[in-house]
Amino acid sequence: MKKEIHAFAPATVANVSCGFDIFGFAIDSVGDEVILRLCDKPGVYIKKITGDNGKLPLDPDKNTAGVAIKAFLKYINSNQGIEIDLHKGMPLSSGLGSSAASAVAAVFGANFLLGNLLKREELLKFALEGEKIASGAAHADNIAPSLLGGFILVRSCNPIDIIKIPTPDKLFSTIVHPWIEIRTEDARKILKEFISIKDAVIQWGNIAGFVAGLMKEDYELIARSMQDVIVEPVRLSLVPGFKQVKESALKAGALGGGISGSGPSIFALSTSKTTAEKVGKNMQSEFGALNIKSDLYISRINEEGAKILS
Amino acid sequence: MKKEIHAFAPATVANVSCGFDIFGFAIDSVGDEVILRLCDKPGVYIKKITGDNGKLPLDPDKNTAGVAIKAFLKYINSNQGIEIDLHKGMPLSSGLGSSAASAVAAVFGANFLLGNLLKREELLKFALEGEKIASGAAHADNIAPSLLGGFILVRSCNPIDIIKIPTPDKLFSTIVHPWIEIRTEDARKILKEFISIKDAVIQWGNIAGFVAGLMKEDYELIARSMQDVIVEPVRLSLVPGFKQVKESALKAGALGGGISGSGPSIFALSTSKTTAEKVGKNMQSEFGALNIKSDLYISRINEEGAKILS
Repeated sequence: MKKEIHAFAPATVANVSCGFDIFGFAIDSVGDEVILRLCDKPGVYIKKITGDNGKLPLDPDKNTAGVAIKAFLKYINSNQGIEIDLHKGMPLSSGLGSSAASAVAAVFGANFLLGNLLKREELLKFALEGEKIASGAAHADNIAPSLLGGFILVRSCNPIDIIKIPTPDKLFSTIVHPWIEIRTEDARKILKEFISIKDAVIQWGNIAGFVAGLMKEDYELIARSMQDVIVEPVRLSLVPGFKQVKESALKAGALGGGISGSGPSIFALSTSKTTAEKVGKNMQSEFGALNIKSDLYISRINEEGAKILS
Repeated sequence: MKKEIHAFAPATVANVSCGFDIFGFAIDSVGDEVILRLCDKPGVYIKKITGDNGKLPLDPDKNTAGVAIKAFLKYINSNQGIEIDLHKGMPLSSGLGSSAASAVAAVFGANFLLGNLLKREELLKFALEGEKIASGAAHADNIAPSLLGGFILVRSCNPIDIIKIPTPDKLFSTIVHPWIEIRTEDARKILKEFISIKDAVIQWGNIAGFVAGLMKEDYELIARSMQDVIVEPVRLSLVPGFKQVKESALKAGALGGGISGSGPSIFALSTSKTTAEKVGKNMQSEFGALNIKSDLYISRINEEGAKILS
């Protein structure tokens, strides 16, 4: 058994336009890192958190990483003590699955540290326990792609049913994170409890088309399907300049885009790195026109998911 | 130019459980036949209808076949006179896309008779005009599979966007048509105008899973996805014995099933002919226990769609 390991889990885009609460994908390079060490005293101890501007709790029962590891240890019936350092590699409350990435990296690392007792897929439920603490609900649309990589369909949450959808070769993701904050809870509260069946039919036509488009590698179909008539029209008011930013992405050649998770980040999909970069430039400049600073992430779809760095 | 031809268009199952208003598939052997003849006098003339118990109008402006051909002739700017005989090969108001099959066979035949001026896909809009007369709305979930064959996703009706989803090899369809009548209009009226977003999310998870299941040829996933939490719970009251009949199908090994179109027929999908037959036997016997007579259709998925018989 190794005594210290570094685990990484990627940032993720949930919802993906027409796939509210059931779809997500992982991006490259950006993500959270968790350093895990075995220790003699039973329990989970968060020793250090960096990159969170002092906002995250060190109490393992209030931190997604701590909760996830504790749920895992309980399941495997282990008293093993574990110390962790958590390095946030992405802004908090950005809509990029920050809490999910911490939970996934933590539990993926803990499982590795204890000798890979469980399969990758089996770790999902423990990471979900962590996510519950952060967002109040156990949604898997960030957790699952962060753990497994690629495009993930969460067909059902109860019981959990996760399906990996093949990623078309050419896809690149652009994400622009404006420096404003939206609380996941507020983004949930703004949603309507009831929707018209007419709109719902449009939405499930689009999500069916989106899945078919990904699997057929039909970029035109992907583009036509990336329309959200349910959540985007309600949530766009939470992101200043959303309409202009999205429009500027489409003008630059993006297939489509929308709010990433519950925002404020906005994502777009394109068929080349060049286009994805042009899209990002346009999006940032629209935010800039409103005096909103932003981060830009250009990335392939991450097919690997969580991994051990060392 | 041939002076008389026989065209056939298959019966279809629309909605397909979780795909309300956006999904349909075509079945083998059962369908409508239209005999078309060129005539000297401009106009469309329905000379004879059989198999309808005298219920369908000979007036071409009130008959889906007549309306479809007239829309086609108008589009190609032709004054050609056409006489047709219509042979209904399936019961009316059965939920098997009877009006759609007549419209499709008619316009497919007319196009062939006039020298195949338009491609198969281009005929969709004329058949839709016919469907409007029958059901009051231009839904393509019967029309498109009857014309094109296979599993069809109608991603959007406006503008029309039709996607063919590959059919897994093993699939067999069982359809039981109980001898009771439901008017499409009544089946629409009973639907709720608003649904909870929670249920809608379950539904679009299922339709996304269903499409992925068909494309991955993952029969377990197809089975898990064939759940309709929106329309079936409301419409099942229209079909006496629905719950028992569906349950008996699942017990016999069906992957799933539901109301075909707006009913009263009930369909099920299975992975072999033997199972499909067993499923059909069970379903008929449940209807029998309620003193309801029924027809049984066992069939592969029809990949061909409309065709010229002679």
